[in-house]
Amino acid sequence: MPSATTSISSPVAITMGCPAGIGPEILCRLFHLADRPAAGRGVVVGDLGVLRQAAEQLGMPLTIVRWRPGEAIDPQTLPVLQVGAPLSTPIEWGRPDAATGQAMGRYIEEAVRLIADGHCSALVTCPISKQSLQQAGYPYPGHTEMLAALTSTAKVRMMMAGPRLKVVLVTIHVALREVPGLLTYKEIADCIRMTRECLRRDFAIANPRIAVAGFNPHGSEQGLFGDEEARLIAPAVAQCQDSGEVSGPWPPDTIFHKAASGRFDAVIAMYHDQGLIPFKLLHFADGVNVTLGLPIVRTSVDHGTAYDIAGRNMADPTSLAAALALAQTIVANRRGRAA
Amino acid sequence: MPSATTSISSPVAITMGCPAGIGPEILCRLFHLADRPAAGRGVVVGDLGVLRQAAEQLGMPLTIVRWRPGEAIDPQTLPVLQVGAPLSTPIEWGRPDAATGQAMGRYIEEAVRLIADGHCSALVTCPISKQSLQQAGYPYPGHTEMLAALTSTAKVRMMMAGPRLKVVLVTIHVALREVPGLLTYKEIADCIRMTRECLRRDFAIANPRIAVAGFNPHGSEQGLFGDEEARLIAPAVAQCQDSGEVSGPWPPDTIFHKAASGRFDAVIAMYHDQGLIPFKLLHFADGVNVTLGLPIVRTSVDHGTAYDIAGRNMADPTSLAAALALAQTIVANRRGRAA
Repeated sequence: MPSATTSISSPVAITMGCPAGIGPEILCRLFHLADRPAAGRGVVVGDLGVLRQAAEQLGMPLTIVRWRPGEAIDPQTLPVLQVGAPLSTPIEWGRPDAATGQAMGRYIEEAVRLIADGHCSALVTCPISKQSLQQAGYPYPGHTEMLAALTSTAKVRMMMAGPRLKVVLVTIHVALREVPGLLTYKEIADCIRMTRECLRRDFAIANPRIAVAGFNPHGSEQGLFGDEEARLIAPAVAQCQDSGEVSGPWPPDTIFHKAASGRFDAVIAMYHDQGLIPFKLLHFADGVNVTLGLPIVRTSVDHGTAYDIAGRNMADPTSLAAALALAQTIVANRRGRAA
Repeated sequence: MPSATTSISSPVAITMGCPAGIGPEILCRLFHLADRPAAGRGVVVGDLGVLRQAAEQLGMPLTIVRWRPGEAIDPQTLPVLQVGAPLSTPIEWGRPDAATGQAMGRYIEEAVRLIADGHCSALVTCPISKQSLQQAGYPYPGHTEMLAALTSTAKVRMMMAGPRLKVVLVTIHVALREVPGLLTYKEIADCIRMTRECLRRDFAIANPRIAVAGFNPHGSEQGLFGDEEARLIAPAVAQCQDSGEVSGPWPPDTIFHKAASGRFDAVIAMYHDQGLIPFKLLHFADGVNVTLGLPIVRTSVDHGTAYDIAGRNMADPTSLAAALALAQTIVANRRGRAA
């Protein structure tokens, strides 16, 4: 997977995400704007009726058509693979229920199948509600874990990618007080290696320059406050010197500036906010979430379902457009490398 | 303190910092540049010979003159209060010793005295080496603690201020794993109040909007990971509602973007890197360190002695210029408020 029958012209599968969130709206905006030619290479895995409802409310004269695997796509349309029976419309925006939770999970399963069968080249995901997903009986904390299970993948990592900064997280959604107990030499080294492989294969950077952040203020100042640098991070960096440029541990408060200035291709962050605070400061609207480790190409918007603004014509499709463009770039880079 | 005799025309006392660091160079650059009129309101508390050595090496035709308390200053010169016997020159850049450590400490003592006696209006500090300070027998971890002791101040806080973002830190130079044990309801509330007072008095913001950051990813998502938000931060925010706009706990990964976009005047950060990572990303060169709680006005450059580049004509005086300008603004705002 992906199967050998995938062709360069296979479209990207874009899951609609939670039908009651902002997914339908940002998809309509994406396909509506003539200056987003990338949209012409995507098909939505979701629900025709909900997308039509969204387009009508937005006053957008979109041609929303049913698409079936293997069919050519018309770039002037918004092609939709209808998953299961149509949801009953009108959807009440901002109010997920059992039906939307079920549907949302099936979009993901269907999209992974499309890629495995060679009908689509990559996966872009619109936001889901983790709570709804679990209430619908899918036993996953989120998208990433579900995709890992569907593709039998043991270890995945989250990269946040933008034009100025890329960060990869060693630990993610855990209490900050638990992070020191979760950081291990092996986790850090694995993260460095997966990042290097991604930068080479997916971003076509032949010799990636990877900076590894420290954990404590000023990187502990030689052990003055904290020892995670000496005990875990420095040994992991040393172990990954075998190929490529890996450096650190760097003082956390200045390394992101250095990376954003062009000195590094990616920064390995030890905890969620260490990476996400600088990332969102630089890429509040145009950031893309990339999953490392999966056998399929998967990018995602870096925002949530935004139930508070769903149906209010306020949602910004910038991150979705960036996620789609990046998925296409990664597909092209992997093909270029394989060729 | 400051004494009632301080006049609007009193210059700002700028300590030279470690004689072997980049202090002398950035001072020469500051006073050399004709487009930095603010320099005309400062006197250096340091060593004439070292500054002359620096100016000569830089090839800057500065007129470096001895200044004595009470004398008018000529804005065409670099006026210096010579502290103690001249250091033996040439100084070996990047090599602090017992003599430079002693001298550096005395500059600080002398500058505080000048302000207490009404000869100077505010203090700007160039970087010192904490190690040298202690080796010279000054029992302080750094500048701020020394100033607190010299002015009999019980509680001080560090604010980092720049045109786009101001952050105030609840905890500073401690191992990150120790922060959860150090955060208390009272420390957070004190920090909010000191920040509010500073914004009103020193920055002339009548109704400051203060955002208080959470501690955990996404602000813990209702306790899903961590409880510091519910247990400590939310109660502190609630207690500080008596006057002014204080909100939080906010998800750490997006609050700095919101603040930098103009929605808040300052962000209270729970730990060093939470505040410093976004601050240095926005204000790598022009950030200023402001000490809250002291009876005197004190700003500082936000960088260190940079021994690795001392004497190599590479040091950037931007932070020093910003620190001097901000000290003058704060003095003017306090006077305007008192008038």
